[in-house]
Amino acid sequence: MYIGIDLGGTNIAVGLVDENGKIIAQDSTPTLAPRSYAEIVKDMVELSEKLTAEAGISMKDIEAVGIGTPGSVDYEKGSVAYANNLGFNDAPLREEFQKYHNVPVILENDANAAAYGEYIANGTDTDVFLAITLGTGVGGGIIIDDKIFRGSNGAGAELGHFTLVHNGAPCSCGKKGCWEAYASVTALINQTKVAIEKHPESLMKTLAEESGHVSGRTAFDAAKKGDLAAQEVVGKYIEYVADGLVSIVNIFQPNKIVVGGGISKEGDYLLNPVREYVKKYDYNKLFKRTEIATATLYNDAGIIGAAFAAKNFR
Amino acid sequence: MYIGIDLGGTNIAVGLVDENGKIIAQDSTPTLAPRSYAEIVKDMVELSEKLTAEAGISMKDIEAVGIGTPGSVDYEKGSVAYANNLGFNDAPLREEFQKYHNVPVILENDANAAAYGEYIANGTDTDVFLAITLGTGVGGGIIIDDKIFRGSNGAGAELGHFTLVHNGAPCSCGKKGCWEAYASVTALINQTKVAIEKHPESLMKTLAEESGHVSGRTAFDAAKKGDLAAQEVVGKYIEYVADGLVSIVNIFQPNKIVVGGGISKEGDYLLNPVREYVKKYDYNKLFKRTEIATATLYNDAGIIGAAFAAKNFR
Repeated sequence: MYIGIDLGGTNIAVGLVDENGKIIAQDSTPTLAPRSYAEIVKDMVELSEKLTAEAGISMKDIEAVGIGTPGSVDYEKGSVAYANNLGFNDAPLREEFQKYHNVPVILENDANAAAYGEYIANGTDTDVFLAITLGTGVGGGIIIDDKIFRGSNGAGAELGHFTLVHNGAPCSCGKKGCWEAYASVTALINQTKVAIEKHPESLMKTLAEESGHVSGRTAFDAAKKGDLAAQEVVGKYIEYVADGLVSIVNIFQPNKIVVGGGISKEGDYLLNPVREYVKKYDYNKLFKRTEIATATLYNDAGIIGAAFAAKNFR
Repeated sequence: MYIGIDLGGTNIAVGLVDENGKIIAQDSTPTLAPRSYAEIVKDMVELSEKLTAEAGISMKDIEAVGIGTPGSVDYEKGSVAYANNLGFNDAPLREEFQKYHNVPVILENDANAAAYGEYIANGTDTDVFLAITLGTGVGGGIIIDDKIFRGSNGAGAELGHFTLVHNGAPCSCGKKGCWEAYASVTALINQTKVAIEKHPESLMKTLAEESGHVSGRTAFDAAKKGDLAAQEVVGKYIEYVADGLVSIVNIFQPNKIVVGGGISKEGDYLLNPVREYVKKYDYNKLFKRTEIATATLYNDAGIIGAAFAAKNFR
C-alpha cells in the first residue's frame, strides 16, 4: 500500500493508494499557507495515520510515500527548493516526514505527479505520453519509456512556458508570449472580458452578470447557444490551444496526449476542433498519429501519480 | 571499425570511423538525385569497399554501417519511407546494402545522426543533450540518457517546426510561424533582403552587390562594421534564435545545447547575446543552467553520428 499526497496552495490531499492505482481512502485539510514546512508535514503525517488506522492497517504497511508539490523540487535532497505560493525556501519535506515514520518518501513536482497519475490510468501502453493541464496556468508532464522526464536538473517539462507568440502577451514567468498566456483558463477569461467590452450585446455579458463573474465557461456556454462573439472567442482560444499542441507533437510525437484542467470538461466540443487543427499541421503525415484525449482522473491524478512515483522511483 | 554514411541531397559522404569516434578516412560522390535507391546504395557500397581496401582492411572487419538520410525513416524496416529531395518512396536501404555485404546496417534521420555525432564529440557527460542546426532549414536532435529521442513513431524531434510566431510567416511544412521560418539561414537572407529594400544606403547592399548575392553573412558582416540597419537585422535574428532556444530550454532543461550550421561560424558574436537572452527568460532560476555552445564537427557530424548510431543501436 502507498500514500500519495497532493500538496496544493489551498488543500493538502492525502490518499491511500493500492498496487493497482486505486484510491482506497482519502482525506484533506486546508494548507493555510504560508505556514512552516514542519506544520504542513505534521498535517500530512496525521492524515496518513488517520487513513491507515481507518483502513485497519498501520504506517508500517506503507511501502512508500509520494508528495506532489508546487514549485522547484530538489530531487536528491527530497526538498522543495522554492515554492512561491507556499512560501517555501528549501523545505526538506522528506527528512521532516521521516522524523515521524521510517518509510521511503519521494517528492515530485505537482504537474509531473498529475501527469504520471494520468499515465498510470491511461498511458501505460505508450512509449511517449504527455499530460497537459489547462487551468490557472498551463502545466504538464512528460513520460518517456515509463519514466517521468524532468530534464537534466529537475526543472524541465515547463510546458506552459514555450513561446506561442514571439513578443506577445506578458506571462507570469517574466517572458512574453508563452503558451500559458494564451491557453490557460486565466487567459481565456481575459479574452472573454475583452470580447464583452467590444460586444456588449453578447450573451457572454448576460451570462457573466447572471453568475456574478466571467469564468472559463462563459464564452463556451454562450458559444454553444449560438452567440457569434462567443464563438469567435472560443474559436480563437481553441486555435491557441491547438497551435501549442502542434509544437508539442512535432517535438515529441507522443503516442498520446491527455488534456486536463477545468476547461477539459468541455470534452469533444473543445477537443474535436483541436484534433482537426493538429492533424492538419502536424509535421508527421506518414506514421502513426498522436491520440489526443481528455484526462480522466481530475483531482485524483496528483494523489495517484505521487503514490506511483513513490512506488516506482523511490 | 564502423562505416558512417551521410546521404545528402548533393553528396553521398562515406567515412571509416574508429571506436573512438575518429574518422580514419572519408570520401564522397555526387548524389545525382533523383536516382533509384539501388544506384545510390551501389555508390555507398563501392565507396565503403574503396575506403576499407585503402585502409588495408576488408568489409568483414566492419562491425556495422550507419546511414544518415534525409526524410522519414522507418526504423524497423531500415527503409526511407519518404524523402522529398531524394525522390524516395519506401527505399529499403538496409536490405539493398546487405545484398552486397552481410553486415548490420542501421538507418538514422540525418538531423538525428548529426546531433548524435555532436553528442559523441561534446556531450557524453550529459543526461539531456540537444544539437540545433541553423541552415537552409532548422533541424536538430535530442539525446536523452545516451539514446537518440525519436518520439513514439520515429518522426519526433522536428525542432524547426514548433511555433515561434502564432499565425506568422509561412513555413515550408505548411504551418505558419515555425521557428525555422525565422531562425534558418534562409529566413535570415529574407530578413536581410527586406532590410536592404528599406535601407538602400545600408552597407548590406554594397556587400551583397560585391559578392553578387545576399547570404547569411551579409547582415553579420555589415553589422560588425557598424552598419545600423544590419545591426537591427542581426539583433532581431538573434532574438528569434534565442526565443526558440528558451522554448527548448524550458521544455528540456538540457545540460547542453550545441548550435551548428553555417551561421554558427559567427561564434560568440551570435551566441553571447543568445546566452544572455536565454539566461534572462529561462524559467529555471534555481538549478544548473543549460550550457549553450557552438557545434564543433560541422560536416563530419553526420558521418560520425551515423557510425556511432550503428555501433550503439544496431
